[in-house]
Amino acid sequence: MGGDHAPHEIVAGAVHAVRERGLPVVLVGSPRVLYEALADHDATKEVPIVRAEEALSMDEGALASLRRPRSSIAIACHLVRRGDACAVVSAGSTAGIVATGRLRLKGQQGVLLDAGANAEVKPEMLLQFAHLGSAYAELAHGVATPKVGLLTIGSEAEKGNKLVRRAHELLQSSPGIDFAGNVEGYDLLTGKVDVITTDGFTGNIALKTMEGAVRYAFAELRETIEDSRLARFGAAMQRSRIRGLRRRLDAEAHGGAVLLGLNGTVVIAHGASKASGVSAACALAADLSSAGIVSAIGDRIAAAKGSHRLWP
Amino acid sequence: MGGDHAPHEIVAGAVHAVRERGLPVVLVGSPRVLYEALADHDATKEVPIVRAEEALSMDEGALASLRRPRSSIAIACHLVRRGDACAVVSAGSTAGIVATGRLRLKGQQGVLLDAGANAEVKPEMLLQFAHLGSAYAELAHGVATPKVGLLTIGSEAEKGNKLVRRAHELLQSSPGIDFAGNVEGYDLLTGKVDVITTDGFTGNIALKTMEGAVRYAFAELRETIEDSRLARFGAAMQRSRIRGLRRRLDAEAHGGAVLLGLNGTVVIAHGASKASGVSAACALAADLSSAGIVSAIGDRIAAAKGSHRLWP
Repeated sequence: MGGDHAPHEIVAGAVHAVRERGLPVVLVGSPRVLYEALADHDATKEVPIVRAEEALSMDEGALASLRRPRSSIAIACHLVRRGDACAVVSAGSTAGIVATGRLRLKGQQGVLLDAGANAEVKPEMLLQFAHLGSAYAELAHGVATPKVGLLTIGSEAEKGNKLVRRAHELLQSSPGIDFAGNVEGYDLLTGKVDVITTDGFTGNIALKTMEGAVRYAFAELRETIEDSRLARFGAAMQRSRIRGLRRRLDAEAHGGAVLLGLNGTVVIAHGASKASGVSAACALAADLSSAGIVSAIGDRIAAAKGSHRLWP
Repeated sequence: MGGDHAPHEIVAGAVHAVRERGLPVVLVGSPRVLYEALADHDATKEVPIVRAEEALSMDEGALASLRRPRSSIAIACHLVRRGDACAVVSAGSTAGIVATGRLRLKGQQGVLLDAGANAEVKPEMLLQFAHLGSAYAELAHGVATPKVGLLTIGSEAEKGNKLVRRAHELLQSSPGIDFAGNVEGYDLLTGKVDVITTDGFTGNIALKTMEGAVRYAFAELRETIEDSRLARFGAAMQRSRIRGLRRRLDAEAHGGAVLLGLNGTVVIAHGASKASGVSAACALAADLSSAGIVSAIGDRIAAAKGSHRLWP
């Protein structure tokens, strides 16, 4: 029920995941709305529906998760908790998903989660994010010793606001982290580090800026190519390669963000996800779940916590 | 003396500005170092040197401006204060330039400047930046009623941390501002608004992320084109157009950032500026200075302050 293009693109993505990827997807939400959308794909017999009469709207935040215990996202989390599903995928309000996930899939022991970007950020949280990100890079992507960078405004240790300067000290003295020092906005795509830790506000600005800049560069490029009569022939030859590159940089193709620190796999797809993005998010959720990544991260964090002072 | 590629690229840029743009440039710094660099261009008689025996290094911050009253940037500001030069251009440490500019070119009455991104940011500052940005867009770019956006994590008024939520209220109730509401990272290049107000930390992350993403997209594009034998012919035809686009998106071509709120024109060129960037920064400084933009902004701000409560 969540997402800018719900229900049609979400349902189309679920149908794609079932038919093309062989994943057993359950839709949670208004039976009437979902049934009609499934009917457009002749898929009413292929995708089961679990009833939820309420849904969080895209502009509802964390509090709504308390006010609406029967929302589609709450019911979806409940299915995971009961073991009837192995992961939740949603393109709905991030704040709503995070708050509901925390409430219904109680956080792993010792892992505090930043409840959305509105919360006051503490340096200890940036250390926790570094631990979660390291564990994820290691377990989900097979990076042996993930290098961690701290996002700030200059490479020297003293660069940045109070929050990052204190976080720098914590990261430097944390034995479980391969801390590579400060990184800047330039470094998001260079591969200089495997994990970048930052607060929710700054991370949101950086990711959306990156997405907007890549989108802009490609739109300008297309215009430049189409403007040129001479270049048109060459463009035709390159079009498929450029399309391939564009797909690689496209946030949709990666499925979404994984919510770490819960007792269960939750993938947050982009709010603007269309069918292909939703299907990719289902694939990501299935991969993570079948490999037991999320609970392995919990174990790793718990072990790290036992061996040294991870957070106060 | 300042900049990642000082002194050679800086001096080459100054020589270019003198020869190709007809701008009377004065170099401030170590006479020996600058003379040698000028000699490489046979330009020792074309560009005068003003002696400064000290220089702020790239990693020195705001405090260095107090410790070094005879630094090259301090002397350059002094030339402007005395009326011997009409603008300062530097590719040195931003914190050092801002602090020295504040100290040597005392801020315009009523205009508080954020002393670098380390300072604690107050909502009133974001309102001031909006006023400065609006005045700049109007006077330097001829935008009749500049639309102002507030950079945060969602379009609804309540999205963001305490700082931006309070700034949203201030902007909304400020008669001198055409406030278009919140904008997100996506909007930096869309032209949705003319001015975006944000704190120094977030702005730094956003601008560097944008620059890095555009650079990455073009590097990937080049690789994609070069990888393809078939596409090579087409690529040759397009190369000049892509180069043109790249130049348009290049931070260097725009010269630099203007430091607003001082009694004098100060242009901060990118730290990584090469000769062409330095020359463009000199052109920007000359244009702003000859049009009296910086003092006109001061007048506009003073007038706005008289007519309504601009800040507490």
